Amino acid sequence: MYEKEISTAVIRRLPRYYRYLGELLAHDVVRISSKELSERMGVTASQIRQDLNNFGGFGQQGYGYNVEYLYNEIGKILGLDKKNRIIIVGAGNLGQAIANYGDFERRGFEIIGIFDVNPSIVGTSVRGITIRSAETLEEFIKVHEVEIAVLTLPKEKAPQVAADLAKWGIRGIWNFAPTDLHLPPHVMQENVHLAESLMRLSYKLKASEKNEKKRKL
Amino acid sequence: MYEKEISTAVIRRLPRYYRYLGELLAHDVVRISSKELSERMGVTASQIRQDLNNFGGFGQQGYGYNVEYLYNEIGKILGLDKKNRIIIVGAGNLGQAIANYGDFERRGFEIIGIFDVNPSIVGTSVRGITIRSAETLEEFIKVHEVEIAVLTLPKEKAPQVAADLAKWGIRGIWNFAPTDLHLPPHVMQENVHLAESLMRLSYKLKASEKNEKKRKL
Repeated sequence: MYEKEISTAVIRRLPRYYRYLGELLAHDVVRISSKELSERMGVTASQIRQDLNNFGGFGQQGYGYNVEYLYNEIGKILGLDKKNRIIIVGAGNLGQAIANYGDFERRGFEIIGIFDVNPSIVGTSVRGITIRSAETLEEFIKVHEVEIAVLTLPKEKAPQVAADLAKWGIRGIWNFAPTDLHLPPHVMQENVHLAESLMRLSYKLKASEKNEKKRKL
Repeated sequence: MYEKEISTAVIRRLPRYYRYLGELLAHDVVRISSKELSERMGVTASQIRQDLNNFGGFGQQGYGYNVEYLYNEIGKILGLDKKNRIIIVGAGNLGQAIANYGDFERRGFEIIGIFDVNPSIVGTSVRGITIRSAETLEEFIKVHEVEIAVLTLPKEKAPQVAADLAKWGIRGIWNFAPTDLHLPPHVMQENVHLAESLMRLSYKLKASEKNEKKRKL
């Protein structure tokens, strides 16, 4: 459908478009202008037009965007039109939080396995999915088709486990361990570094206090 | 110390510098050149020099950066030189995962309260912190100094709770609910939208498969 390279910034914004369009769809909104969408999302209408033009421009002058069509097309671009099978490696609180987060399934992500090294939780289950021993990971990946592995384990263990998963054929790593993984180029990774996000908030707080003090001078 | 506006992109990268410098410090590294740091971090040396120049340039030609000094200075910029008191609103798996994540405390973030509406968990505790009834939130905020509230609750409830927290004086919201909050301009927010992160991974997977197919043609 589209062939040119899309900038990282646009890709970063796509899931947000997808979320907003999904909400519109849930409220039976059939079409929306870039102006209305921009007001809801808090970005400029011209940014929206520019972003969506990357994908061939789904809008029509004076008519606006067809919400369902745009939602589905962005979904395809994001790879949500096919099933993504997920395993979770590390069944602590964070791993269990993700397993319990039903929202992923609506988007074609299916959690098919949860693994841990802790024998006291192996055999118990989360949302109907049994926690398996981490020793059975390689075998499991051989037998099942798994696209994505979620790493919710201590940072000391993450690099080795990620390397093993890559060796066993996993192509996508969603990494929550606060460390950068060095993986073969064909393995895609996305990091959620929580401490870094919290530090950005702390920065904003400090900067806003500073501005306030300046205004008061 | 510095007065000019710093771009969002630089701010996004600062916590990562901070993390790497912290690791170097833990390994007793005293100084590092922008070249070495760039190799570890996988960014160009000129990017590092540019980024750090925003804060007055802590490096010296031919000597490199003093790791501890740079770590502390970035820490100050990020507001980590003072205590940030945190409350967690929503004590489900995700809220508990955050409460259990000891790493935050090393960086001056202190979790002083956890709240939930579910009477069956109110009164139990996580890492020594008692889960309190959400009804006591306003009173708690009045009595304690709280800088940051973590929202780990369903998206339907997040907007109202965030508005209440802002009214009661909270200045920083770390939002995990998959919805954008519309808050007064003096309230800073940082969002962790997990589903969006997962969709970005899904996009990368699809794009990489596509490239592979092209190479094979």
